[in-house]
Formats: sequence, structure tokens, C-alpha cells
Amino acid sequence: LVTDPRVAEHAKIVVNYSCKVKRGEFVVVLAPGIAIPLVAAIAGEVARVGAHMTVLLRDDRIGRAIMLNADDETLSTFPAPVIDLFKSADAIVAIIAPENTKELSDISPEKLGMNMKGMAPANSVIMKKERWCITLHPTQSLAQEAGRSFEDYSDFVYAATIRDWPKLVEQMRVLAERMRSAKQVHIVGKKTDISFSIEGRRPLIDEGFKNLPGGEVFTSPVEGSVNGKVYFDVPFLFLSKSIRGVSLTFVDGEIVEHDAEVGNDLLTEMLGLDEGAKRLGELGIGMNRGITQGTMNTLFDEKMGDTIHMAVGHAFEELGGKNVSAIHIDMVKRIKDGGAIYLDGVPVYENGKFVWE
Amino acid sequence: LVTDPRVAEHAKIVVNYSCKVKRGEFVVVLAPGIAIPLVAAIAGEVARVGAHMTVLLRDDRIGRAIMLNADDETLSTFPAPVIDLFKSADAIVAIIAPENTKELSDISPEKLGMNMKGMAPANSVIMKKERWCITLHPTQSLAQEAGRSFEDYSDFVYAATIRDWPKLVEQMRVLAERMRSAKQVHIVGKKTDISFSIEGRRPLIDEGFKNLPGGEVFTSPVEGSVNGKVYFDVPFLFLSKSIRGVSLTFVDGEIVEHDAEVGNDLLTEMLGLDEGAKRLGELGIGMNRGITQGTMNTLFDEKMGDTIHMAVGHAFEELGGKNVSAIHIDMVKRIKDGGAIYLDGVPVYENGKFVWE
Repeated sequence: LVTDPRVAEHAKIVVNYSCKVKRGEFVVVLAPGIAIPLVAAIAGEVARVGAHMTVLLRDDRIGRAIMLNADDETLSTFPAPVIDLFKSADAIVAIIAPENTKELSDISPEKLGMNMKGMAPANSVIMKKERWCITLHPTQSLAQEAGRSFEDYSDFVYAATIRDWPKLVEQMRVLAERMRSAKQVHIVGKKTDISFSIEGRRPLIDEGFKNLPGGEVFTSPVEGSVNGKVYFDVPFLFLSKSIRGVSLTFVDGEIVEHDAEVGNDLLTEMLGLDEGAKRLGELGIGMNRGITQGTMNTLFDEKMGDTIHMAVGHAFEELGGKNVSAIHIDMVKRIKDGGAIYLDGVPVYENGKFVWE
Repeated sequence: LVTDPRVAEHAKIVVNYSCKVKRGEFVVVLAPGIAIPLVAAIAGEVARVGAHMTVLLRDDRIGRAIMLNADDETLSTFPAPVIDLFKSADAIVAIIAPENTKELSDISPEKLGMNMKGMAPANSVIMKKERWCITLHPTQSLAQEAGRSFEDYSDFVYAATIRDWPKLVEQMRVLAERMRSAKQVHIVGKKTDISFSIEGRRPLIDEGFKNLPGGEVFTSPVEGSVNGKVYFDVPFLFLSKSIRGVSLTFVDGEIVEHDAEVGNDLLTEMLGLDEGAKRLGELGIGMNRGITQGTMNTLFDEKMGDTIHMAVGHAFEELGGKNVSAIHIDMVKRIKDGGAIYLDGVPVYENGKFVWE
């Protein structure tokens, strides 16, 4: 391959570690054309294993053209043959590699919401699979969004992606064990005091399988038990738009008040999309200290060390989650300075570190 | 669309004229990433009609990576779920738009042949469909291959593609009528004297549906009836390699002698691929006088006015053709200077024009 040699390493991790592709299997890859170096490297690795692969072209310019021209009925349905294709896949790999992170910025929140609803059945099929992996191929657009040079950003991406996963998994297991036996979570921090039950919900370690890079421990809270306030200070992009400084107030599981310092219109639209959009689908705790800065990309930001994140919307059924929604929006909060996490009233994280550190 | 306005016109012809896409239908597009302007325009038009669409990424860099790494068993099979996807499509659009026409030039003829065999079941499903369309989006690579500047080449492409199809169809009908009632074809010209039967075989007019641009009348000869010699003077690319000056000698339908001035090894490999590769699958007569020069691209070259072409390999079942093969290689011959076509002994083309012109 005439490309950064780390691309080939990345492909090997995707195929052999994250997706464990075996002879005779069938892999579906979703990617834009600019990700061809990684796609071709994955194709080579899949072929070497003796499996087959097909690639669906995902590009926001296509999505934008559809949203600008389709009526609501067309936009809110998804073609069944593509769902069948996803069902038949042994593993699915989605590659994030935009050429312009703002390509959907002139599409109305209504249209974006309708489109998300249309795609929900497909996403649900993918997320129910045992093996799927979202990963990222560095582009100038992503580097720009992160406020970094392309070389610096690429170094950052590969350092977080090509790493000693078993070592990090060991540390994440300690936290997961404590969460497994706990009933109640209480998180405090800047403008934040929120508590909820995780009783009967299974915590999962993100070992770099479904998300590459991985580096978080997460679960789906008991939906109706969420009470209190939370403030997310790490800005993020959602459907080409910046959202920053989100405050949410929960009463018995439902968001009764919300605000975003930037992007409140889109947030309002998304929270109103369906019943499940107003409820919590995920609590995650980031433990990848290789990621120390936000880059406006959730795949990386939510794994950042010394952060927690919550997602409104769709919950993880396989972890006991019951919430159903067309959306799943992750929002990240730093807890290093003054934040704390309590399990059944006992601190597991305070003063900038986990209690066993 | 921020692009050449002819791209939008091209997309409209593909969706509404060639593929006649209707509300509720499902379209599959095969395209490389560089064709995104046309893909997005097609997506917008399909959405406007109220149909759904998905795009499979086809790029020779992916195919090359697979061929370099897959063993023979993997390479010679095609994933069933993708065949199912093709079967479920109401229309299939394939867009030619290479970034490098020579990307497969360092793959061995054996591997290329194996890969073609593997893809044959998929191609057969596509060709059996009523609505499919191969078209071309201009790239620097194609312009270079044609020996033209990008602007000049783009003008050429759109002039041949965006045109008054009904007018050309009228002229093609005259020839098709004569072929329909004829039993025997005899073609003479430079190093050429070949005859065969077309009795019971239906001639088809390429109106710009399955090929865009269209502009030929074609059929599948009676396989065992082909006798004589033919020489193809228009050079072409096959799987990244140049082939030039092909001579074929037929005895009772089978090629008993062949030679190419350039690319004879690849030709030999392809003719040996299977039984059907040594037999004629198509006779076509080019009538698009908007195309006057070869551009090393069969989609255009075979429509050139004052030419005939023949394809070795797979025949058109829907026209009565019986030959089965993993290949279908079109080769073009100029007949303007000294060539002639006879139907049942009566000339229909001689001295550089059709007899009714």
C-alpha cells in the first residue's frame, strides 16, 4: 500500500481484533470514497483471511441531496433490501472520514430528524449484531475540526487506536466489577448533581471491538429512575452542527428542562423526535487517558480519561436497556476538577482519580 | 449542486429516461468516490421521484487489494447477499469513473480471470434485469486515456450523452428492421471476411437505456455458424491493459486462431477462461456519428458511427443468444474505408454509408 504504514496496522486491528473475521464470512463496510486507503487495506486483510466484503458508499453529499429532494414519506422509510444486506453480514465496519464535517449544516432540523427516524430500523439491526465496529480514518476536515494540523491529528488518531488494548482492559475491569454489584449511581460536578439506578443493568467494557478506539465502561441506566441535573462542558458536532454547554434536568427519567449554550434549536428538535428521545439511553465513563483533549468527535471524546458521558435516546438492549428511540446522542463532561462518581454512596472517582489509583 | 450543470442533466436522463424510476422503487448504484457529483445528483433525482437508493463503492484499488490477497477459492466466489441486493433492485446504475485506468495493470491475467469468473453470477443477475444502465462520469484519468484535455473530453462525453435520442432511434430502426428479416450476415473489410447466421435472433436498438450513451443496433449471432476472419483496428483497454490489432479466425463458431498486436497474453488468457470465451456473443453496428474518435473506452467506442463491433463471450439471452461465459469483451472495427455489411447477400452498408443514406 502506498500510504501511511499505520493504515495497514489499523486495518489489521479492525479485521482481526475488533471484528474477528473468519474464513467464509461476509463483511459489510460503510465508508466515503476518501477513506479508500483504509477500505482497500481492510479489503486486502479480509481477502487474506478468506472472507468476502462489500462496501456501501456513505457520503454526506449523497445524504444531503436526498434530504433536499425527498418528501417526508420517502425520507422516513428505509429500503428493506439494504436492511437484509446488514442482516446477512457477519460483521459490519463503519468508517468515519468526512471531507467536510459541516456538509449537512444547511439541512433543517426537521428533515434531519425525519431522516434519522428513517434510518433507525437499519441502525437497530446493526447494533443488535455481535460484531460491528465504528472506526475513523483521519481527514483534513477532521483535523481542522479538532483545531490541529493533519500530521498532529493523524498521530493522535493512531496513538489512540493502535495500542496495548489488554492493558487498558485490565483497568476497565476493576470499574466494571464495582458497577456490576452496585445499584445506585450518583454523579456530582460543575452544575451537576444527578442520580439513577443501574440495578439489573450489565456494565460493558469497550475493549476496542465495537468502537475503535475503545476505552470506556458503559451501561444503560434504569430509565424511570433518573433524577437531577447534569451539565456537559465538552462541545460536540451533531449532524454538522455545533452543540455546546448542554444542561439537562431529569424528573423520574424524563427530561423536563433542557438548554444548550450553542445549538439549542437542534437539541430541542432532537429531544422532541420521539418518546425515547427524552430519556437516558447510556451512562459511560471514559478511561482512555491517551485522549486528553476534545476533538469534536464523539468516537474519541467519549473515551477521554477523567470524563463521563451520557446519551439521550436509544439504550443498549443487550445490557438490559429498554429505552427505544431513533436518536442516541452522546454528551461528554469533564470530572477531573471537582467532579465525583459514587456507587451506592461510596466514591469510586474523586479528586481527579479513581479511588484505587 | 456546485458542479458542471450538465451533471444534473445527465442525472435526470439516467433516472427518468434510461431507468424510468418510479415512486416506491429501489435503485442500486455502483460507483467510485470520485463520481460523487453525479451520484449525488442521481440520489437527488431518485429522491424527488419518491424512490430509494443505495450506493456500492466500486474502486479498482479495492479490487486490486482483494486480488493480491485472496486465494483462488475466495476469489472465484461472490457473496450471495450482494447478489440478493441486485435481485431486489428495480434498476441498477453503474458509473464508470476511474482515477487511474491502469490500476489493475500489475495483477496477473490468471487472477483477473479468476476474479471475473467469481463476478459472473452477479453480472448475470444484473444483465437479466429489465432496467440497468452503464454510464460514465468524466475524470482526468479518462481524458488522459483518450489523449484529450479534461474540458475537451467532458464536452465530448456530454455531447454524446445529452442528446436527441428519439431522432437517432429512428435511424437505428431502419437497420434493425432489415436485420430482423435477414438470416445471414457477411462483413468484409481490412483483413476481414466473416459470415454467420442471425436467423431467429432478435436485433436490439440501444436507445440510451442500458448504455448511456447508446447508439448501436446489436444481436447475438447463431453460435456455431460463425466462419471466417475478422480484424479489429480500434485499440481498447481490458482490465487496465491495452489490447490493439486483434485478429480472430473462426471455424464453425469457434476461434481456432487469434492474435493481438499488443496484449496477446491477456487475450489468450481470456479466450481460454471457459468454453464460451472462444465463441461470439455479440455483433453490434455503431451508428452514433457524434462519436468519431476512439477514446479507449468501450462504452463510447462501440457506438462510434461507421464501425462494427463483436464481443467474444457471454451472449444476450433475451435476444436468443445461447453462449455462456464469464467474459464479454467488445472489439471495434472501422468500416468507413472499404468495409461493407451484407444481409442475405444484399449490401446495407458500403462506401462509407448505409444504402438508404
